[in-house]
Amino acid sequence: MSQTILLANRPQGTPQLSDFEFIEEEVQSLEDGQLLLELEYVSVDPYLRGRMNDAKSYIPPFELNKPITSGCVARVKESKNDGFQQDDYVTGMLPWKKQQIHSGADLTKVDPNQAPLSAYLGVLGITGLTAYCGLMEIGKPKQGESLVVSGAAGAVGSIVGQIGKILGLHVVGIAGTDEKINMLKGEFGFDAGINYKTTKNMKTTIAEVCPDGVDIYFDNVGGEIADAVLFSINKYARIIVCGAISVYNETSPPTGLSVQPFLVKNTALMQGFLISDYKQQFPKAIKAIAGWLQEGKLKYEETIVEGFENIPQAFLGLFSGKNKGKMVVKV
Amino acid sequence: MSQTILLANRPQGTPQLSDFEFIEEEVQSLEDGQLLLELEYVSVDPYLRGRMNDAKSYIPPFELNKPITSGCVARVKESKNDGFQQDDYVTGMLPWKKQQIHSGADLTKVDPNQAPLSAYLGVLGITGLTAYCGLMEIGKPKQGESLVVSGAAGAVGSIVGQIGKILGLHVVGIAGTDEKINMLKGEFGFDAGINYKTTKNMKTTIAEVCPDGVDIYFDNVGGEIADAVLFSINKYARIIVCGAISVYNETSPPTGLSVQPFLVKNTALMQGFLISDYKQQFPKAIKAIAGWLQEGKLKYEETIVEGFENIPQAFLGLFSGKNKGKMVVKV
Repeated sequence: MSQTILLANRPQGTPQLSDFEFIEEEVQSLEDGQLLLELEYVSVDPYLRGRMNDAKSYIPPFELNKPITSGCVARVKESKNDGFQQDDYVTGMLPWKKQQIHSGADLTKVDPNQAPLSAYLGVLGITGLTAYCGLMEIGKPKQGESLVVSGAAGAVGSIVGQIGKILGLHVVGIAGTDEKINMLKGEFGFDAGINYKTTKNMKTTIAEVCPDGVDIYFDNVGGEIADAVLFSINKYARIIVCGAISVYNETSPPTGLSVQPFLVKNTALMQGFLISDYKQQFPKAIKAIAGWLQEGKLKYEETIVEGFENIPQAFLGLFSGKNKGKMVVKV
Repeated sequence: MSQTILLANRPQGTPQLSDFEFIEEEVQSLEDGQLLLELEYVSVDPYLRGRMNDAKSYIPPFELNKPITSGCVARVKESKNDGFQQDDYVTGMLPWKKQQIHSGADLTKVDPNQAPLSAYLGVLGITGLTAYCGLMEIGKPKQGESLVVSGAAGAVGSIVGQIGKILGLHVVGIAGTDEKINMLKGEFGFDAGINYKTTKNMKTTIAEVCPDGVDIYFDNVGGEIADAVLFSINKYARIIVCGAISVYNETSPPTGLSVQPFLVKNTALMQGFLISDYKQQFPKAIKAIAGWLQEGKLKYEETIVEGFENIPQAFLGLFSGKNKGKMVVKV
């Protein structure tokens, strides 16, 4: 038997602990070609909220009373598959089930000696790839341009901003505590930071810290922050719409500034971003990120929550800004 | 002396006749290299409204108490420039001044025998180029896809929809009178039309007439219509933001649905469109449009208002839907 976390209810608004159910589920016996996996690290991410709704999206919704799935690192406890050996570590999209049988398909082996295992869920995983591909492929940054990142202290945002600095951009991060702002300006080398919770007029503040306007806006949050940035965008600005965490829990379609007049006036681009569209860029991206990590140019934060039983709390914490950098659960 | 129309006030909200002033302005004497032009046709266009504000945009604002400028056809009344002869016809961006001295720079000669002169301000001018380049370069249409056009009975919209039909798309037009809808479905061959003024629920109506969703939305109007289309967009939808006439007269930034969640969920693109970015495509576009005109596949409507003194009224008429197709003033 294995502890397993199911989606018990489709959340209305902000998810609650009661939307999750813990059960003991059978672990089937290992057949030829299969692996027995034990979860080591579980990634909790804002986009999972979208999959909890029964709505058309880029990936199908989670099924009710079935295990939730996310990016995980697992250890191979037993293998009847020639491609894997006992004590190999792998990453892949896995159900929140402590022990599980797996075919081995779509798993990637990772080396625990090259980087801490949790990094494969973050800077060397989907998080880092999202930052790199979104910024490079949609943002198309040019040295000297100005980059604003929202959710800047989050997993993706902090990497986006650092890559911006490596490429010679003027980088401004928006986050929700002074501690996060200090981290952005100190540890991560951002040129400026804006605490949106204590700033009275976001519109004028953004204009002040971006005196030459905003060429690239990497948007992780949507909502009022995204609206405020629009007033400062330059001609041919590129807006990467990577996430909209500020409105994921809204029960009716959120409203805000009409973006169309800003886009027409500035011949600007807004592009919804989905990492799986950029698979061809992954080798190049991983190479660049690994290089910057080795050179000490790229730092990453992670918030590690301990215990399989705390996965739902860790996920809920994303919506109240409990994480600095990537939020990961150590099983 | 020549009759001239100045911008007397920056309009607050919807422009008024009192925002324009008629004066008699001197016509300077003709020097070597110069032309004396006489206006024949004047184009009035929604985008001129933006230039009447004192705001940062893709082209500088009009100056107060200076002549307004737009696309015009003029006759060469006298020439001291080797490139032009008397009675040549030319198009270019010209001030609203009946007779004027010109250097000849940035003028294009047009042939009155190939097409009616007014067509060079419409289907064979910026209007046709805007329709073609916006649809082809941002919309990237593929046969069988579904195209929604707002402002569909307008100059640009009616050409966009017809090109869509020529390319084998499912084409739906949105306009504001039943007469316009009948024209779209009859004369222009659209698959369906929606009268937004009499339709109770735009969101469900769009979903009904686009049962396979919307792949391309050519947006001439913005506002609530643009919001309603968002609910039906498909994965990888392309939204060409060509205009936002519904909000040009707003005095504070208009609000509406937050587009970001729709863009993320559908990995969709919204791109502000500016025709001058596509100059390299113009020869190809003109060739295609001229070909379709000759084959009778492309029809165009124009609303011709007579008299230089009626230019301001013609311009104001754009905002109350007085035009079918391109609005042009015959001087």
